[in-house]
Amino acid sequence: MNTTIIAPATPKGKGALAIIRLSGPEAISIADSIWEGSPLTECRSHTAHLGNIIDENGDILDQAVATIFKGPKSFTGENVVEFSLHGSPWIIREVSNLLLRKGARGAEPGEFSRRAYLNGRMDLASAEGVADLIASSSRAAHRLAMQQTKGSFSKEFNDLRDKLIELASLLELELDFSEEDVEFADRTRLIDIATLLLLKIDRLTASYATGRAIKEGVPVVIAGMPNVGKSTLLNALLQEDKAIVSDIPGTTRDIIEDTCEIEGVLFRFVDTAGLRDSADAIESIGIERARKRLAQASIVLWLIDPLAPIGEQIAEMNSTLKELSPEQKIIPVITKISLPEISESQIESFQKYINTVLLSDETSHDIQNIVKISAEEGIGLETLCEALKKASTSDFDPEKELLLTNARHYGDLLKAGNALHRALNQMQAGSSADFIAMDIREATTALSSLTGTITTPDLLNSIFSHFCIGK
Amino acid sequence: MNTTIIAPATPKGKGALAIIRLSGPEAISIADSIWEGSPLTECRSHTAHLGNIIDENGDILDQAVATIFKGPKSFTGENVVEFSLHGSPWIIREVSNLLLRKGARGAEPGEFSRRAYLNGRMDLASAEGVADLIASSSRAAHRLAMQQTKGSFSKEFNDLRDKLIELASLLELELDFSEEDVEFADRTRLIDIATLLLLKIDRLTASYATGRAIKEGVPVVIAGMPNVGKSTLLNALLQEDKAIVSDIPGTTRDIIEDTCEIEGVLFRFVDTAGLRDSADAIESIGIERARKRLAQASIVLWLIDPLAPIGEQIAEMNSTLKELSPEQKIIPVITKISLPEISESQIESFQKYINTVLLSDETSHDIQNIVKISAEEGIGLETLCEALKKASTSDFDPEKELLLTNARHYGDLLKAGNALHRALNQMQAGSSADFIAMDIREATTALSSLTGTITTPDLLNSIFSHFCIGK
Repeated sequence: MNTTIIAPATPKGKGALAIIRLSGPEAISIADSIWEGSPLTECRSHTAHLGNIIDENGDILDQAVATIFKGPKSFTGENVVEFSLHGSPWIIREVSNLLLRKGARGAEPGEFSRRAYLNGRMDLASAEGVADLIASSSRAAHRLAMQQTKGSFSKEFNDLRDKLIELASLLELELDFSEEDVEFADRTRLIDIATLLLLKIDRLTASYATGRAIKEGVPVVIAGMPNVGKSTLLNALLQEDKAIVSDIPGTTRDIIEDTCEIEGVLFRFVDTAGLRDSADAIESIGIERARKRLAQASIVLWLIDPLAPIGEQIAEMNSTLKELSPEQKIIPVITKISLPEISESQIESFQKYINTVLLSDETSHDIQNIVKISAEEGIGLETLCEALKKASTSDFDPEKELLLTNARHYGDLLKAGNALHRALNQMQAGSSADFIAMDIREATTALSSLTGTITTPDLLNSIFSHFCIGK
Repeated sequence: MNTTIIAPATPKGKGALAIIRLSGPEAISIADSIWEGSPLTECRSHTAHLGNIIDENGDILDQAVATIFKGPKSFTGENVVEFSLHGSPWIIREVSNLLLRKGARGAEPGEFSRRAYLNGRMDLASAEGVADLIASSSRAAHRLAMQQTKGSFSKEFNDLRDKLIELASLLELELDFSEEDVEFADRTRLIDIATLLLLKIDRLTASYATGRAIKEGVPVVIAGMPNVGKSTLLNALLQEDKAIVSDIPGTTRDIIEDTCEIEGVLFRFVDTAGLRDSADAIESIGIERARKRLAQASIVLWLIDPLAPIGEQIAEMNSTLKELSPEQKIIPVITKISLPEISESQIESFQKYINTVLLSDETSHDIQNIVKISAEEGIGLETLCEALKKASTSDFDPEKELLLTNARHYGDLLKAGNALHRALNQMQAGSSADFIAMDIREATTALSSLTGTITTPDLLNSIFSHFCIGK
């Protein structure tokens, strides 16, 4: 923290502008040592100055704008200087090297945010939110990250922790008076508090699946027998020529996937090898992988080709359904409906037949209405998108409550929840307060790690090393 | 110029920060319309402010820093606002779209620089220098671009133009008095001025080859018979595994090239197919292309393998030399010197033999000293780099004089020079002042276009369309 760090803060490559950022006690004096213009050491905070950056030989490396942010009113809480340079990789390299020679140290990934956290400018969950904010690629993911940055998560976590500490102190009270045989006096109240707390923690951990789907995209697997039009549909949804399409069954063997935002929701579409018994070795590997991805899907688009044998397709669908869990949603999709070989009434009777089969499904899967499309002609895609949007909604409404998106938060909350569950069971069983206190202490420790009240250098390293350089 | 333009100014991709830039009469009020924080319309110029960017629904798109630059003391001379955002492609897109909805217009490539030029903040050559500055990838290229940005070129071009106008006015004087038969009175002085001016223009146009080599890299072709170690040398010079290397003669068929900075000089190394008569169709195309690139080289590294038949290699070298022009420099390179199959004394006698052959070369080529290397062991590479550096120097010293680097400047100066040459010839031949004045007017027009005194929208379009967006 005594050193002054420096890093480029804008993406690599050529551009109109690029930013190099300095932070630390010597930030302004080091910046001033390469500066030809108003003396930066005398400039007021939050002011921008035009000048030249000159190297040891007096050569001008660039004409730049230097903006001064004096600590503690800066991003890191330290003195910060931002040089706005011409966006030339050569200039960025040379100016960085010059600043290193002048005594600055190259910043590690996330070191600016880490300093902001250590200087109390940002709590841990907010700092993690900044990384998510940069990575977010849909409106919903952006909203979640913004909530986290703005401190809503930290508030929620701190509330939970405060309630746990309240619980622990009530328990301590009981321990103090244990010799006087009052131990059962407050148990009902303790149980009430613990139950309420657990409800909240369980609700939060349960929101993780939805939160992660929002952050990384709702996983949608496009499945069906070979040559029913899976790759054609993927390309139509992504509006690009992503997967190779041919008339030959078994064209797709690798897993092909990409994300795409539909009305503010990010979907991760996965095109797979057509499911069948194949003699082809590579295709068989592809089919095996397809089955694995099916197990991870939130939504399965099961494609049915009205021109191919229907019995076989229904049989394959039924055997696939058996492998899926009841939470996974299935949207049956009849493809190729605009082909002249097939009439509207044929498709309708086809649809009725599938519905009859699906109604008799005993595994009680969450099967949505059939959608009819022609991916090639772009027919029915809007209806499909609506069906996807509907199937992607969960009980968790990101506009009304916090959704967990961070694996670390999820892990810590799970730990806290498990410990609290044990404590609750022991309370209900009337166990000794000593044992219960141990579990509650474990839960508190997990929540303290979550909020950053207790941190270790290892924890901070593992959090901030995933940040980009310059953040 | 009445509109307010907006563009991202930093390279695409994720990063810690990204800049969106606005310029125009409404820049500050449009920025303020999406701003939650200190009212930007009331902020002083050159100050930075922390706040939130909010969309029409009141949702926070980002926490950002807005820096205000009030015209005319800004890059474009107009009101400018720079938003420093989190470097998320999603945020950049959404904030850009929001600003467009608020009445800004998407900037065309180079439109900020074009406005800077039109508002007199920058002359044309300086604006062109900014584009070169961003593209420059070596110290020497950077220095040339920086000179241009700082106005040295414009000063030189304006001086030339002023002298031409002086010449023209003297000629006008002669025309005025032509009826009084004084026309020959000043001719000696006119001829002196024109000669001096021509010397300068010719020196500048002659510097273009060197200037371009500095900007784009000195073209060095690595040539020789198949399997003499050309690709191995390319990889050693670039310090990467660029070209495929094998023991099979004819491995390289495509032209493989890349640039590399050696002691401040940018070289463009070109690996070529080994020169021989080949029956292989693809290899033959490669050999043809190699010969074409040889003709464009400033320096040819002619590689000789001491383990391969010497006579054949010398014959091939001699026939290649015949195709080269006297300005092209040739560095003979003996390769593979660290192989155990060959002794030091063998290499020495080998070297003497080559020298004898080269001394008897009647085409008077610019042949440098022989360099001995082992590219695989890294032996002799430093000596080779010194030889390259030496061979790359020209009469033009970028530290002492201006070197032309811009094709447009070169074209205009060439035009001016040709017209002036004609004028000078006519002066010396004693032609009528009317004819001479026509040529001088042509020369002046060319120089006026060069300095931007006369411009057309087409000229400006062709200059600024090569800029990046946001510059």
